[in-house]
Amino acid sequence: MIKSLLLKEPVDYDASQLHPHWIFRNYGILGDAIVAFVGEAHVKSHKMVNLTDVREKEYIYSPKMLNFIVEHFNTDLEMAIYRQLILIFAIKEELDGYEVVVQRIGDDLYVERAKLSVSVATSSVVSTLIHVGLNVESHGTPVKTVGLKELGISDISSFAEKVMLRYKRELERIYEYRCKAKGIPGDS
Amino acid sequence: MIKSLLLKEPVDYDASQLHPHWIFRNYGILGDAIVAFVGEAHVKSHKMVNLTDVREKEYIYSPKMLNFIVEHFNTDLEMAIYRQLILIFAIKEELDGYEVVVQRIGDDLYVERAKLSVSVATSSVVSTLIHVGLNVESHGTPVKTVGLKELGISDISSFAEKVMLRYKRELERIYEYRCKAKGIPGDS
Amino acid sequence: MIKSLLLKEPVDYDASQLHPHWIFRNYGILGDAIVAFVGEAHVKSHKMVNLTDVREKEYIYSPKMLNFIVEHFNTDLEMAIYRQLILIFAIKEELDGYEVVVQRIGDDLYVERAKLSVSVATSSVVSTLIHVGLNVESHGTPVKTVGLKELGISDISSFAEKVMLRYKRELERIYEYRCKAKGIPGDS
Amino acid sequence: MIKSLLLKEPVDYDASQLHPHWIFRNYGILGDAIVAFVGEAHVKSHKMVNLTDVREKEYIYSPKMLNFIVEHFNTDLEMAIYRQLILIFAIKEELDGYEVVVQRIGDDLYVERAKLSVSVATSSVVSTLIHVGLNVESHGTPVKTVGLKELGISDISSFAEKVMLRYKRELERIYEYRCKAKGIPGDS
Amino acid sequence: MIKSLLLKEPVDYDASQLHPHWIFRNYGILGDAIVAFVGEAHVKSHKMVNLTDVREKEYIYSPKMLNFIVEHFNTDLEMAIYRQLILIFAIKEELDGYEVVVQRIGDDLYVERAKLSVSVATSSVVSTLIHVGLNVESHGTPVKTVGLKELGISDISSFAEKVMLRYKRELERIYEYRCKAKGIPGDS
Amino acid sequence: MIKSLLLKEPVDYDASQLHPHWIFRNYGILGDAIVAFVGEAHVKSHKMVNLTDVREKEYIYSPKMLNFIVEHFNTDLEMAIYRQLILIFAIKEELDGYEVVVQRIGDDLYVERAKLSVSVATSSVVSTLIHVGLNVESHGTPVKTVGLKELGISDISSFAEKVMLRYKRELERIYEYRCKAKGIPGDS
Repeated sequence: MIKSLLLKEPVDYDASQLHPHWIFRNYGILGDAIVAFVGEAHVKSHKMVNLTDVREKEYIYSPKMLNFIVEHFNTDLEMAIYRQLILIFAIKEELDGYEVVVQRIGDDLYVERAKLSVSVATSSVVSTLIHVGLNVESHGTPVKTVGLKELGISDISSFAEKVMLRYKRELERIYEYRCKAKGIPGDS
Repeated sequence: MIKSLLLKEPVDYDASQLHPHWIFRNYGILGDAIVAFVGEAHVKSHKMVNLTDVREKEYIYSPKMLNFIVEHFNTDLEMAIYRQLILIFAIKEELDGYEVVVQRIGDDLYVERAKLSVSVATSSVVSTLIHVGLNVESHGTPVKTVGLKELGISDISSFAEKVMLRYKRELERIYEYRCKAKGIPGDS
Repeated sequence: MIKSLLLKEPVDYDASQLHPHWIFRNYGILGDAIVAFVGEAHVKSHKMVNLTDVREKEYIYSPKMLNFIVEHFNTDLEMAIYRQLILIFAIKEELDGYEVVVQRIGDDLYVERAKLSVSVATSSVVSTLIHVGLNVESHGTPVKTVGLKELGISDISSFAEKVMLRYKRELERIYEYRCKAKGIPGDS
Repeated sequence: MIKSLLLKEPVDYDASQLHPHWIFRNYGILGDAIVAFVGEAHVKSHKMVNLTDVREKEYIYSPKMLNFIVEHFNTDLEMAIYRQLILIFAIKEELDGYEVVVQRIGDDLYVERAKLSVSVATSSVVSTLIHVGLNVESHGTPVKTVGLKELGISDISSFAEKVMLRYKRELERIYEYRCKAKGIPGDS
Repeated sequence: MIKSLLLKEPVDYDASQLHPHWIFRNYGILGDAIVAFVGEAHVKSHKMVNLTDVREKEYIYSPKMLNFIVEHFNTDLEMAIYRQLILIFAIKEELDGYEVVVQRIGDDLYVERAKLSVSVATSSVVSTLIHVGLNVESHGTPVKTVGLKELGISDISSFAEKVMLRYKRELERIYEYRCKAKGIPGDS
Repeated sequence: MIKSLLLKEPVDYDASQLHPHWIFRNYGILGDAIVAFVGEAHVKSHKMVNLTDVREKEYIYSPKMLNFIVEHFNTDLEMAIYRQLILIFAIKEELDGYEVVVQRIGDDLYVERAKLSVSVATSSVVSTLIHVGLNVESHGTPVKTVGLKELGISDISSFAEKVMLRYKRELERIYEYRCKAKGIPGDS
């Protein structure tokens, strides 16, 4: 049901991609979708969507990041945060296959205390959006980070495709379970 | 927000526990809650809530199972299935700490192709309910299974408490993220 | 997104088909679906879902009826009634192609004051369900009716397939419009 | 439940009317409402709410258009699109009475391949809004169009009133059906 | 929007009135409605909808009770409980006019520690329902109660009408406020 | 569940406080919360959220006002208006304890036809917000008002704390009732 697309060209992430219909306007994909692309990532503090980060005056910088943008045409923000977590789990389980031991704390992924990911979810009046960025390289980042390259993952495109496939399958399974579940008549 | 309780006495699981207000009627806990207990598990085919299992004439039997019953006073069945998955991930990550390598396929957990878990989610007009059962012992089960005991987890109560704590913390984090997320004005 | 199936064998309609998971249990189709079948239709007053009919002690009988059963795994009953109307419009517009002039009053279809259809929508804790029945033949019905045969539609299977296709396309278009619509920032 | 108003004075449509509380601020009607007015219509590409149109660099122009603005104080955008379709059907069925043969493709109406209508639905944080415009005259339009005048409908006010009445009655019927539908206890 | 009806004949309340479509089946009122009637009230423990009462083995008995049954064709149970509270406030404010000093604790009303009311809200797959009962007389009740008669309210019908009118007006005002409230564009 | 905070320092109310995450950004309280503060209140017409007031060109001014800002991370505007009313009732019932006779008309409180309060509810894509302001002093206000001081309430802080406590308890009770209510199986 959810479509996916791996962008061949690099796109620098500056949070403007976390916008309703960004996927449709730029790539013509209509409906729920996940898109992956690689590029420099730089998000200034005032554009950040996570308010704790804003309060702590953080900013995001990565010289090369694998970014996932997900848009669901449903405005339930709580649901979006569950989906964000499902995407984080999909990445973690994909990394398991590379024998990379990852710690997850909330929606953050760490390898030996070095931060691998940034992530956020947000909502508008038409949809909810998720961004997950994974460092590919780690030099110049404002906090101690690790990149996929250093973890031995050289084929970033293939990795991205597999993560997107996991996410799609997980959502399809969830839909199937939802359609298969029996209801309980009441509690009289 | 969600309360938890580990039952000291054994309770045999026969699916009647997967019922609205079962927790409140029996243990006086009001509101969203997760309860854990150990006992024999036997669910006949016609009482099963997962229709694929019903179509395949399966039944559930385990001589000794650690059961989690979760009730959320919210009737969104899709949300319940996301929460069921969060609970499955909580169990998987807790098992990581015991250095048990677990495969997850949907909402099922396996260790070297032996089934560790059964799980289901359902809804009524007042709430949604989740059951996850983990074999403690595995003799006499209808399919090839593995039990927590055989995985080296001897203190089942402690394990149960830690899983419930993980689930609670995960839901609390999700609530915090939901309250922290900034919205996007529109897409004009 | 919604699947469809034309049953080859006849099925007599007695309202037991208007039940959650009837499609999945009997035909293995999981998820939102529309199924069509032909058979005798007989629904006793006390099994009727439309309470006005019940108050008026009506019953439904048709010697041969083309039935559509639709299940959506969404519990919004108002939405189901909109969808029921979309299905009625799909039938009306398909009949336009046969140059049959049909009057629609609410969710009922008439040809020269003879009733062509019966229809109802209902909800359970897991899904909403729609039934639309079109008389194929009209002898022995309790009110003045007309059948598709008398309207010159001899290939009932083909007609059924085309109606289901219209319904599917309509829902797909609605999904596309929903995903394409821009939001308005606010009204400050 | 839904109120209606036919504006006596002409109002030029430029999409600013498709705004939350436009009806209330200008005409004092509080609550769900449909308003009709006649005027020139000119919507520039960047103000268009339908993104496919935007991608195709279209704009809307009509020298004289009968416009319907509908506001529902409910933020379910999918529901708004169902309602938009109900309004389109109401127009089509009203045109049936004038013996005008209309083709409907999605939410567009055509007479012999000439476009009669434009339509869009949108949402804000407080409401959903629908616009349907019907050409009264067709000279100067950017695509091949047809106007109500050319279809023999000279009394535009009367036509507008009847369309609004149909829409109101349809929504009232839907409400009645929703309140009359029996529920199904479960599927155990 | 919500209709009201004062029943002239006495009806004994035994909780069977707290059922979807009870109002429509018996009095032909379709849609959201409030109905008032006077009669003996006797609800056995196992039929009680409030589980705390059930746990405490209470039952309800009143020789003569003024009962309000409210049905809203909306399945949001939390909303129903807000509405139940609005009805309780309407009763309290009506009693203010009789210079009766009433204490409210949750959804219970007391006059000098004597219980005046019983109340409950519940949900089904099609609607939510509210019952509020006010003792008219108090002899023979299982707990210390007070009746409207003893509070100097002799015209029960008039009192009932005024309470229903307050409830209707309150809901109408809430609808008006909801339609009048401006939204906030976002928080960027 | 809902947190509360009484601000020690004065804050002038100009409607900018009625903004998503204002509480979190300024006071670090995450999640549903009610905050009280005292200060001058001045809201210009074009910033007003209540459109009737806007139409009537009113503005709000109070030399000293006790303000309550409530934020719920739920976007159901109708629910917010129910909650606004619950807060108004909490204030009214607290004033009962001071033997102040208050008239409530909708969400406005009056003492002998002098206006005590202003109030509004609004929504954004992430939350709903409520403002209730109670005059402490009344000189210089644009309409006839009364202040808490003149009503004999000298300890504004204590009064504010008690109102917030009432609101919190009311919402907790509502949650408990919602979790305690039994469902009804159906209406077959």
